[in-house]
Amino acid sequence: MAKPQPINYEDASPSVRAVFDDIKTSRKVPDVNNIWKYLANDPATLKRTWTSVKEVMAPGGALDPVVKEMIYLAISVTNNCGYCVASHSFAASKAGMTDEMFGEVMAIVGMANETNRLVTGYRVPIDAAFEQ
Amino acid sequence: MAKPQPINYEDASPSVRAVFDDIKTSRKVPDVNNIWKYLANDPATLKRTWTSVKEVMAPGGALDPVVKEMIYLAISVTNNCGYCVASHSFAASKAGMTDEMFGEVMAIVGMANETNRLVTGYRVPIDAAFEQ
Amino acid sequence: MAKPQPINYEDASPSVRAVFDDIKTSRKVPDVNNIWKYLANDPATLKRTWTSVKEVMAPGGALDPVVKEMIYLAISVTNNCGYCVASHSFAASKAGMTDEMFGEVMAIVGMANETNRLVTGYRVPIDAAFEQ
Amino acid sequence: MAKPQPINYEDASPSVRAVFDDIKTSRKVPDVNNIWKYLANDPATLKRTWTSVKEVMAPGGALDPVVKEMIYLAISVTNNCGYCVASHSFAASKAGMTDEMFGEVMAIVGMANETNRLVTGYRVPIDAAFEQ
Amino acid sequence: MAKPQPINYEDASPSVRAVFDDIKTSRKVPDVNNIWKYLANDPATLKRTWTSVKEVMAPGGALDPVVKEMIYLAISVTNNCGYCVASHSFAASKAGMTDEMFGEVMAIVGMANETNRLVTGYRVPIDAAFEQ
Amino acid sequence: MAKPQPINYEDASPSVRAVFDDIKTSRKVPDVNNIWKYLANDPATLKRTWTSVKEVMAPGGALDPVVKEMIYLAISVTNNCGYCVASHSFAASKAGMTDEMFGEVMAIVGMANETNRLVTGYRVPIDAAFEQ
Repeated sequence: MAKPQPINYEDASPSVRAVFDDIKTSRKVPDVNNIWKYLANDPATLKRTWTSVKEVMAPGGALDPVVKEMIYLAISVTNNCGYCVASHSFAASKAGMTDEMFGEVMAIVGMANETNRLVTGYRVPIDAAFEQ
Repeated sequence: MAKPQPINYEDASPSVRAVFDDIKTSRKVPDVNNIWKYLANDPATLKRTWTSVKEVMAPGGALDPVVKEMIYLAISVTNNCGYCVASHSFAASKAGMTDEMFGEVMAIVGMANETNRLVTGYRVPIDAAFEQ
Repeated sequence: MAKPQPINYEDASPSVRAVFDDIKTSRKVPDVNNIWKYLANDPATLKRTWTSVKEVMAPGGALDPVVKEMIYLAISVTNNCGYCVASHSFAASKAGMTDEMFGEVMAIVGMANETNRLVTGYRVPIDAAFEQ
Repeated sequence: MAKPQPINYEDASPSVRAVFDDIKTSRKVPDVNNIWKYLANDPATLKRTWTSVKEVMAPGGALDPVVKEMIYLAISVTNNCGYCVASHSFAASKAGMTDEMFGEVMAIVGMANETNRLVTGYRVPIDAAFEQ
Repeated sequence: MAKPQPINYEDASPSVRAVFDDIKTSRKVPDVNNIWKYLANDPATLKRTWTSVKEVMAPGGALDPVVKEMIYLAISVTNNCGYCVASHSFAASKAGMTDEMFGEVMAIVGMANETNRLVTGYRVPIDAAFEQ
Repeated sequence: MAKPQPINYEDASPSVRAVFDDIKTSRKVPDVNNIWKYLANDPATLKRTWTSVKEVMAPGGALDPVVKEMIYLAISVTNNCGYCVASHSFAASKAGMTDEMFGEVMAIVGMANETNRLVTGYRVPIDAAFEQ
């Protein structure tokens, strides 16, 4: 296996093109992002991942699209994934995240990663109230 | 050093009590959670952490309190911190997170952790559009 | 301490050269990879790490070499280590990993990282059957 | 939202029962594991997750089922997920993992987590050969 | 929100300049590092983070400054944060970390990440002696 | 494979007993900790891990034993490994870590985990000075 390469629309199989078309239509974009061009190397994973992301991120649920994108971003930062931080900062901005909102998300990411570890280090037992 | 033990209000120094009092007043609760009783072993860390958490999670910013709590929860799940998942599920619920909202947060946590790794494994380069 | 620099064979001490020679002979390669040139800054760590890797990855055990390399790759992706993903994709390919096998490994990496977090978020207790 | 509780078959909605039935049939088990009983709190996530896991872990691909399960286990250990380590040790054993194979998987998990960090700490650049 | 950009002293608000001045005075440096120029996008986070870092890393406590910096470095390596590894290698060197000390820190980082996972994989219960 | 069980001295093979004896002699303890009793299920991993830990944690290098133990602890907290936090808090205490030193270690763990993520979220580029 060589290093994975992106598969562009013009070189894609019909089943990959069908997913690309659905992404472009759903998101109203002229081309798909790199993640989809790389996942296209495995059409089953491309289709499964897109179908799942589309369902999870669909508007009309209990959370606003911008809230969903900011949660996605916060996790991507915690996982230290450079591509994901870039792509979900972009997506969250498109969904309405302002500079101020970004700043608050980052502040929470920082605090949560700090207190998560303090709790582990001090071996804090779970409060009875949280178990109900 | 023995295993850390919680410090209760009646055994706390004046400076620790002052922080406990501020937590109880700010959050309108009769007692502080275990995390604060354990951090009280290091009064400087107790005070610094509470001051920071209070500032970051304060209402009146760009994000709703329930949104902030759900982001905190999503990170705690990603970090696999049992205490933090329990305490921030509790806090988010108190701030208004419904079962449906919790389900959506978890769905995003799952997808983000999945796609974060797919991107790393396929070595996907950052799209030029995300760098602007 | 300045930024770590690679140590090449011609500049290496006899003890480092001995490890480099063993790597080259064992793996039938003309030169060692960058990881070994950097670990050579600490000859004890170079020797200990190589000895351990050689023992763990040796053929003749219960697992095929390609299976071992794919497990190494899956962990490297989960840890988000760019160098390690590149080097273990390369090593796994050399050991026989095809594009199809790579795709299946990545699909599992994605799912495992997703379900690992769902379990944490929903606070799922361990089934009694798993404890036996 | 209260602490998540498991949903048993007798209390489940028809759509949840349909997923439970498919799990029981596919895996030839009398009852589903706890993870599915908890995910049943969000029927959409239950269905999406099961459909994806079923597809990814299906026999007949390029990797043996026991190899797939061992990769799933290695990731679960790296993510420090207690439930997942227990459930995937169980699943891998059922698929044929012996004590010796388990020992080799753990040895690789240990080495990979060690070398992944050494590479980061020594700031090792990617070899040109890995980029092809 | 566009991609975050650094804010230099000449373009900074008075409150950001005050923090920059305090960093430069405390550390006796002519300019602040990139982290502070980026955090300056959110003056509250800049001030809170600097105040906390300054307090935690202050000399005069129970640990030597170089020990503190090496601990910071070990965590940054474990978290796979490239910027942080670079900046804290630099800071630790300035505080007196030699090549030999760096090598020992990395050796511990490697071993700890290895044994942390072995313990999880073998599901080792906590010794009674550790609970006292 | 059933759930891993500890192997006690009286049930151990000669090669496992030899490692146990060396641990007991080196550490001047009457019995080995649980980690070694579980690793004894794979004598090769037991021996390799103990040999490596013994070498890395040996006194007489550039770092004091208590500093080494505190670094080990800081990583264990960051990795959220309950067993490891308990065992390395115990070991560090035995090596001389006081309550005050523990508090400072935890404070650094918290800050490092916070700033590691802020750097990732703000996409901070590495300062030129750190690359030398």
